[in-house]
Amino acid sequence: MAADFSRQSSAAKSGATRSVSDSQSEMTELVLPNDTNTLGNLLGGRLMHFIDLVGAMAAYRHSRSHVVTASMDHIDFIAPVHVGDLLILKSSCNRAFRTSMEIGVKAEVENTMAGVRRHVASAFLTFVAVDPQGRKVPVAQLQPETPDEVRRYEDAGHRRELREAERERRKTNREARERPAESAKI
Amino acid sequence: MAADFSRQSSAAKSGATRSVSDSQSEMTELVLPNDTNTLGNLLGGRLMHFIDLVGAMAAYRHSRSHVVTASMDHIDFIAPVHVGDLLILKSSCNRAFRTSMEIGVKAEVENTMAGVRRHVASAFLTFVAVDPQGRKVPVAQLQPETPDEVRRYEDAGHRRELREAERERRKTNREARERPAESAKI
Amino acid sequence: MAADFSRQSSAAKSGATRSVSDSQSEMTELVLPNDTNTLGNLLGGRLMHFIDLVGAMAAYRHSRSHVVTASMDHIDFIAPVHVGDLLILKSSCNRAFRTSMEIGVKAEVENTMAGVRRHVASAFLTFVAVDPQGRKVPVAQLQPETPDEVRRYEDAGHRRELREAERERRKTNREARERPAESAKI
Amino acid sequence: MAADFSRQSSAAKSGATRSVSDSQSEMTELVLPNDTNTLGNLLGGRLMHFIDLVGAMAAYRHSRSHVVTASMDHIDFIAPVHVGDLLILKSSCNRAFRTSMEIGVKAEVENTMAGVRRHVASAFLTFVAVDPQGRKVPVAQLQPETPDEVRRYEDAGHRRELREAERERRKTNREARERPAESAKI
Amino acid sequence: MAADFSRQSSAAKSGATRSVSDSQSEMTELVLPNDTNTLGNLLGGRLMHFIDLVGAMAAYRHSRSHVVTASMDHIDFIAPVHVGDLLILKSSCNRAFRTSMEIGVKAEVENTMAGVRRHVASAFLTFVAVDPQGRKVPVAQLQPETPDEVRRYEDAGHRRELREAERERRKTNREARERPAESAKI
Amino acid sequence: MAADFSRQSSAAKSGATRSVSDSQSEMTELVLPNDTNTLGNLLGGRLMHFIDLVGAMAAYRHSRSHVVTASMDHIDFIAPVHVGDLLILKSSCNRAFRTSMEIGVKAEVENTMAGVRRHVASAFLTFVAVDPQGRKVPVAQLQPETPDEVRRYEDAGHRRELREAERERRKTNREARERPAESAKI
Repeated sequence: MAADFSRQSSAAKSGATRSVSDSQSEMTELVLPNDTNTLGNLLGGRLMHFIDLVGAMAAYRHSRSHVVTASMDHIDFIAPVHVGDLLILKSSCNRAFRTSMEIGVKAEVENTMAGVRRHVASAFLTFVAVDPQGRKVPVAQLQPETPDEVRRYEDAGHRRELREAERERRKTNREARERPAESAKI
Repeated sequence: MAADFSRQSSAAKSGATRSVSDSQSEMTELVLPNDTNTLGNLLGGRLMHFIDLVGAMAAYRHSRSHVVTASMDHIDFIAPVHVGDLLILKSSCNRAFRTSMEIGVKAEVENTMAGVRRHVASAFLTFVAVDPQGRKVPVAQLQPETPDEVRRYEDAGHRRELREAERERRKTNREARERPAESAKI
Repeated sequence: MAADFSRQSSAAKSGATRSVSDSQSEMTELVLPNDTNTLGNLLGGRLMHFIDLVGAMAAYRHSRSHVVTASMDHIDFIAPVHVGDLLILKSSCNRAFRTSMEIGVKAEVENTMAGVRRHVASAFLTFVAVDPQGRKVPVAQLQPETPDEVRRYEDAGHRRELREAERERRKTNREARERPAESAKI
Repeated sequence: MAADFSRQSSAAKSGATRSVSDSQSEMTELVLPNDTNTLGNLLGGRLMHFIDLVGAMAAYRHSRSHVVTASMDHIDFIAPVHVGDLLILKSSCNRAFRTSMEIGVKAEVENTMAGVRRHVASAFLTFVAVDPQGRKVPVAQLQPETPDEVRRYEDAGHRRELREAERERRKTNREARERPAESAKI
Repeated sequence: MAADFSRQSSAAKSGATRSVSDSQSEMTELVLPNDTNTLGNLLGGRLMHFIDLVGAMAAYRHSRSHVVTASMDHIDFIAPVHVGDLLILKSSCNRAFRTSMEIGVKAEVENTMAGVRRHVASAFLTFVAVDPQGRKVPVAQLQPETPDEVRRYEDAGHRRELREAERERRKTNREARERPAESAKI
Repeated sequence: MAADFSRQSSAAKSGATRSVSDSQSEMTELVLPNDTNTLGNLLGGRLMHFIDLVGAMAAYRHSRSHVVTASMDHIDFIAPVHVGDLLILKSSCNRAFRTSMEIGVKAEVENTMAGVRRHVASAFLTFVAVDPQGRKVPVAQLQPETPDEVRRYEDAGHRRELREAERERRKTNREARERPAESAKI
């Protein structure tokens, strides 16, 4: 039992909660040639890479443990990002569950010549806190404070229910399809 | 008008269609230390980067034009990937719309010591075909042939409707929230 | 004359000034294995690379033009940075001269497990604003506002004088040494 | 004796053989700006890097152990590869010896706009199976099945003899040259 | 005719020759974690990448034009290279032909703790001088001076003949095999 | 006591000294697109990265132990470096103190087309020798031999005094400023 508790982060152990500002993270990247395709646009996959990194920062800060990415919700790439632009990514914890956290990420692009910013993408990621052996560990709970934080906290709960329903639905479909044996490739 | 047509790829121009096998792509990556976190696991963002790349390959092959990533649907990371594992990624076009394509990607991990493969993640991405100036260009239509291909073709149509309904819903919500001026940060 | 002025950024042209907050930039990096030496410590050169990048961001934002690094003052690496730490870098413009700017950078390391931050290094860099052909262009002046900003503005003026005196001194020494022909290798 | 056998891979231990298809590997790379020289062509060394990676994949799959590259035969770069092209690399085991394997690699380039493929390079590499301490370990034997596989199996035997004769010849030459002491630099 | 000559480098134009020392190049690399496999050894492909880079340096210096890698002769990896080792690579031009050059490369590893160096690999590469459009251009001839340089010059001539005979032999074999139509995969 | 001495490198233990040539290092880099900004110039931070690497090589060779970068003196970037240029970096130990060494680095750029070299930057770095746990270890002393080496040895002593005086001055200033509590951001 003690051994089990020793895997908890200190905040979870003491039943402590954290605020949204404890996990707020910001990352700015100057888009360089090696991040772009032959049209000079930031690759979508490179942007997802940055989103995952800034999301992990918020998850590290909230959980104070190792974390792994469990899922990312649907993401739209609204505006292109070019070589020489600044990419500004912000993240914070929307809600903590037992061992997982929903992290919200917002990416904006700034053209430094013109001095204007545009929204590029928003994403919701789920991270799971783990110990060095990769076993799940409980995390501190999040205490939302402002009306915005409360709204995001509640939305995160709804999104979690949708994700679990969707996961269930997909599982059922897959089983239905796989009953008549089939070598589904994709 | 002619100017407009000149931006089409040759397949679209001639009204030609392509088969699923025309776009099938496969990428294998040996997971190296610089792709991993401090636990020796492949970073989620790096995996998304690979998924986008293999997805773009199928989109290039189907459209024979430049492409940009427009969106990626919800993705779950089912199994961890470790240093030294092989990551096998397969992609193909599920359905083509006017200027966009849904590409399906499946990622598996192979432990070469044990000789076993596990499913890691599946993803649906939307790519848009563009000319060198970044303007949308029509793409060839996809002709599904096997029952599996037909099922994926139809599912891709449903997913597109869901994406558009969801986009509409989010837009409405955002406008509702923004009416009473608010500095939404994420 | 007109041709010459056309190379100025719009702010310089109109005689406008910018505030310190206009150039403030922040970059957070998760230290990954490929940034470290065989002891798992962040390489000094990699840290200098990040310092130059975040410095360039502030210079871009102040000048709204292309910039090149002209010099970096003496820098001490006070504390080691390890794999898995977060590196937080902040920059802002301390003072603008005719075509150059002094940018101050502060780097801190955060151990997310312990939740503590330590000062790693501070640096003063000079960037020069250039046009696409690499010719120097005038920059907007900086208007310091708070007592801290005024102090940094004045210190930047002193440092510039020291740099120029030092540059003069080195030039004199080099000429003295080179008079009796010598194959100075380093 | 037991200790020695414990270093063998399971297939070698049981005297099992593997087929060519067990090791077949495929890797597709989208050529990005950072892989190219100032003319926008894929660097020869980067291509060799990919060839070694896809070769190692086949060697991992055949031997189910760690592997190190022992040699690569003469390689010609027949056609240039450009930014935006797809590079398709295929590998498989041609023959297994006691602790080493000959792997054949074929690289093709696909211009996705035109939909045409060209042969870029073919290579034969030798990999040695090793345990975590770097000591050589026996590998499973290869059982060729088709006429092509049989031909490659036999060719691999001839190539091995040529390599060993050549190694012997070079050694003799080197000793002859070094007898009258000489500071051979290259 | 004039147009054709304008594509020559200045040395070739004037019929000038260069010495071996004009092209001698040296590159030292500190082996970092991201260059290694899971055993902490430098990847064979990464070493080939370095060999090609240092070879290209000598080819640039000899030809004073753009160059592309045309071929690399058989290469043996004699000793392993580990994280933290220094890799020392030296190259120079052995002989120039009309538009191509044979470059010799020698790679050594230095363990800085022990202060010992070991030979890792030697390689002969052929580079072709090209203009910005990729068309072959004549290069300056090499004037060997020391007995070693003369020996390497003559050996380079023999190796060239062997390469061309081998290329011819392979071509004949391929045609013989392909006459009865066959889908040779590797 | 024995335990303490066991952390010394063998040279320090035996009171041995090393010459400047023991630590001389040279690194040549071909400037590739991914090292440059949107103007095609080498990034200042990337150059600092190379300077730190070649400096570390000399420090490894002098100390035969692990090393960490402690400081870098003021550095001026005198000339721009472009894609396709060769960057030549040379380093050697100027003086050894108890556990630290001053390393001098000189960077030159060579335009291989024109065959001309220009001085880009010179730098003085301090490295500290450490054991695998990061604790400082004594280093061998440097024995300067030529007049140039003696001059650099003496200059290194003066620079060290200036660095320590400056460090003291900054510390005093900081304490003076911090007495009236203040949230100095940079």
